[in-house]
Amino acid sequence: MTHGNRQLRLASRPTGIPEPSTWSLSTEPVPQPGDGEFVVEVTHISIDPAMRGWMNAGRSYLEPVGIGAVMRAIALGRVVASKHAGFAVDDLVSGMFGVQEYAVSDGRGVLKLDPQVAPLPTYLGALGGTGLTAYFGLFDIGRPLPGDTVVVSAAAGAVGSVAGQLARIHGCRVIGIAGGPDKCAWITEELGFDAAIDYKNQSVAAELQRHAPAGLDVYFDNVGGEILDAALTRLARGARIVICGAISQYNSHEVRGPKNYLSLLVSRASMTGMLVLDYADRYAEAVTALAGWLRSGELVAREQVVLGGVEDFPQVLTKLFTGENTGKLVLELRDHA
Amino acid sequence: MTHGNRQLRLASRPTGIPEPSTWSLSTEPVPQPGDGEFVVEVTHISIDPAMRGWMNAGRSYLEPVGIGAVMRAIALGRVVASKHAGFAVDDLVSGMFGVQEYAVSDGRGVLKLDPQVAPLPTYLGALGGTGLTAYFGLFDIGRPLPGDTVVVSAAAGAVGSVAGQLARIHGCRVIGIAGGPDKCAWITEELGFDAAIDYKNQSVAAELQRHAPAGLDVYFDNVGGEILDAALTRLARGARIVICGAISQYNSHEVRGPKNYLSLLVSRASMTGMLVLDYADRYAEAVTALAGWLRSGELVAREQVVLGGVEDFPQVLTKLFTGENTGKLVLELRDHA
Repeated sequence: MTHGNRQLRLASRPTGIPEPSTWSLSTEPVPQPGDGEFVVEVTHISIDPAMRGWMNAGRSYLEPVGIGAVMRAIALGRVVASKHAGFAVDDLVSGMFGVQEYAVSDGRGVLKLDPQVAPLPTYLGALGGTGLTAYFGLFDIGRPLPGDTVVVSAAAGAVGSVAGQLARIHGCRVIGIAGGPDKCAWITEELGFDAAIDYKNQSVAAELQRHAPAGLDVYFDNVGGEILDAALTRLARGARIVICGAISQYNSHEVRGPKNYLSLLVSRASMTGMLVLDYADRYAEAVTALAGWLRSGELVAREQVVLGGVEDFPQVLTKLFTGENTGKLVLELRDHA
Repeated sequence: MTHGNRQLRLASRPTGIPEPSTWSLSTEPVPQPGDGEFVVEVTHISIDPAMRGWMNAGRSYLEPVGIGAVMRAIALGRVVASKHAGFAVDDLVSGMFGVQEYAVSDGRGVLKLDPQVAPLPTYLGALGGTGLTAYFGLFDIGRPLPGDTVVVSAAAGAVGSVAGQLARIHGCRVIGIAGGPDKCAWITEELGFDAAIDYKNQSVAAELQRHAPAGLDVYFDNVGGEILDAALTRLARGARIVICGAISQYNSHEVRGPKNYLSLLVSRASMTGMLVLDYADRYAEAVTALAGWLRSGELVAREQVVLGGVEDFPQVLTKLFTGENTGKLVLELRDHA
């Protein structure tokens, strides 16, 4: 720990796609823990679509990241110094540690990880916020019944790939929407989706009609935009749309509203937003279930781990918006001790 | 019954606002009942925003009105001839009789009316589909708790004026959005709304912030468009949006989608479509409740009755889309026997 704590900070609020001027790098002394605190050496940073929203000003479910502040991120790491009774040196932990090499924590919101249960990056994916979001979004908001037709967008992405598999495990017929033949092959051949629609090369509305002639019972939406509008035209009566995200819109200057929203009326359907933070008191239930399905092999976890430094965060984040990732995207920090 | 049965038919499907070429008039012999049928002389025709949707081609909750068919309408009338054991001459009835002077019925979907309980036009308003829509939309989809803030658009319209009063009776704080000072005065002074917002002369978003600083718990939407988008910016956490209608959009070539729909995610809110037809097995419950509140004076029913002939239907329908009506709009047919 001789070279300092390198950090990526939000220098200005982007309008549209973040640019180099959005970010600044800083180096501070490696922090020391105060009483009741510990210091984490960050090893893995979660790359999430929600990060784009955190960069915007205005009312949302979390405060915007301040201008000049270290970029907010869920991350994993190893405790390297501790004056906290509950955390010892070498504990592996996850928490909101930010895009930096070292973080100080008082333990709030920090979980200890067991590398025997799953590889560390899986704690950011299927066993982390990603898996929890899929679990509660699907089961609590989507409320599928066995036999229902469940459609998932961004189906090869972090949340979508888990949500679709959970629906399959639950006994649903699952159709995934993804970009390109490789992703479509992955979700059908490796993840067990019943069908895939390649939105880059096929008409989503026509393929939904073909694969789900009786309509969609649950639509788990991660993308918004034209794909949401296509799904709205194919709802079964009483359908539930889970609004988990809208990655196609996060860099837009003006969000495209779903112009087919009156299908909600025709189909007596609902569209409901969800945030995983609301289910904190049930995380243990979900993690137990998810870990069981991982262990049995019913649930396949995939992380796309990019090795780099905090200075690489901007270009890794961009992969989310250009559709380059398959599964959970993680920035693994090169050894910096 | 000497001059025949005058009927208004759909001659062509309008795109946008219906024009004279949308309609045609016909005269047929006054029908005679077959076995198990009766003939109704139509006296009052319900004028409903949903009629505009029935005129469009394409998949919806009812078949489109056929080109050349008598325009679909809920109506009231008097039985003038009967070969049906359950209906006698001079019975007063409501049913889907259409825009015509005489209708033949086999009794399906027909209700008998008691003019002692309420004036006949009220059976198209607070005691008819209007009141039922308000009742089930508010209580089953909106699910307000006493003390909740409930906002209603088209609050001086047929459904809105009842929905807002039901929320007030339920112990909610009620804010109505209506067009012009007269309507706003009516809903606050006569109907007991806590506040009114005049969307023609005020900023809806700013007034919602002022009147409901803690946000909207229920938003009962009859209009869509900009007002729905304004309401979306002011949702309380867990808010329920009832999509009952979208009168601002029915004559549009392309519906404006709610561009602020991602507030559903930020506020963990839902937007759910409803159709009163789904609650047929609970109509009696609702009518009993509504009639009780009418009798006690807690619920004020208002109908705007226009006297005319079936040929006046097109211009009366237009009043809905130009915001000219207050309360339930009814076309009362001049004596035509």
